[in-house]
Amino acid sequence: MELIEKAISEKGKVLPGNVLKVGSFLNNRIDVCLVNALGKDISEHFKGKGVNLILTIEASGIAIASLTAVHFNCDVIFAKKSKTSNVEGEYYTAPCYSYTHKVQNDLIVPKEYLSKGDRVLIVDDVLARGEAVNACMSLISQAGAECVGVAVAFEKGFQKAGDALRSKGVDVYAGAIVDEMNENKITFRKQ
Amino acid sequence: MELIEKAISEKGKVLPGNVLKVGSFLNNRIDVCLVNALGKDISEHFKGKGVNLILTIEASGIAIASLTAVHFNCDVIFAKKSKTSNVEGEYYTAPCYSYTHKVQNDLIVPKEYLSKGDRVLIVDDVLARGEAVNACMSLISQAGAECVGVAVAFEKGFQKAGDALRSKGVDVYAGAIVDEMNENKITFRKQ
Repeated sequence: MELIEKAISEKGKVLPGNVLKVGSFLNNRIDVCLVNALGKDISEHFKGKGVNLILTIEASGIAIASLTAVHFNCDVIFAKKSKTSNVEGEYYTAPCYSYTHKVQNDLIVPKEYLSKGDRVLIVDDVLARGEAVNACMSLISQAGAECVGVAVAFEKGFQKAGDALRSKGVDVYAGAIVDEMNENKITFRKQ
Repeated sequence: MELIEKAISEKGKVLPGNVLKVGSFLNNRIDVCLVNALGKDISEHFKGKGVNLILTIEASGIAIASLTAVHFNCDVIFAKKSKTSNVEGEYYTAPCYSYTHKVQNDLIVPKEYLSKGDRVLIVDDVLARGEAVNACMSLISQAGAECVGVAVAFEKGFQKAGDALRSKGVDVYAGAIVDEMNENKITFRKQ
């Protein structure tokens, strides 16, 4: 999606450790006009697939998920991160390692909010090594629901998780795919 | 707003410790259709006030903030919670005690995302004792920006923070004001 590539080129910052900082428009300060356009594009990509629920992860996925769900007219649930599983009620949980924060979280979704028969689209800000998406797929599978696909604002193509998912037949939408990046240049894959 | 009162009456759960659980439609699984209607109502309340930025707090305020900002056509920023202030770059911080989680957090917003001249609406899910709103007001004040008002999905009227803000001249919008609640009945203030 040209708008996302343009925003990343103009406002993204490449930091050491393969970090692409997008906090000024995507996941701390949010350019709602841009993200709303992204959400519309995602809804067009998955049109007719019967999506009735969007699953995301706190905190940086929530704005994108909400501004996508409004085009599907469906609900959003977000998985909470907890270092301990010390929570009340019945939950689905899945382990998820964060390379950014170098910490192991358990993703948690109350059983009452995710049900068999739900057709779930996973939405997040970034797809890199696929830890978060794989954990979300586990939560969906535990509930007996179906994963319709994955949509992210951008994908780090050089970290391969997107292609691994596609090779398994998962429908993966990325607003932009970064194939190479350094301090001077960000190269996008043609889609 | 009748839709919010109806949702709270039908789906809210009163738990011990003056907790009103709204996770099934407002802050864990999100009824996007309902929250979008709320966002539209908030935008009509603050119409003509020059709001150019919405400030909220991770994680439960982000969906409401995003689905409000889309009606203002403005950006959202969310304050992160950190038990330590061990973060890089220049930040505004304000202490914020969470009665729900019984923990003191520092709310953090990067200086580059909040500027003098911004006309900021604070949006959150709940207004109870006002800790979060007061911390947000401090962040806005530190930046030399202006707080245009406060909008929440619902307010616990019996915890008085909303009325305290109104008595200081702050424009406070609440989708519903709960004046009394117990396991059997929730009583709303007429607005």
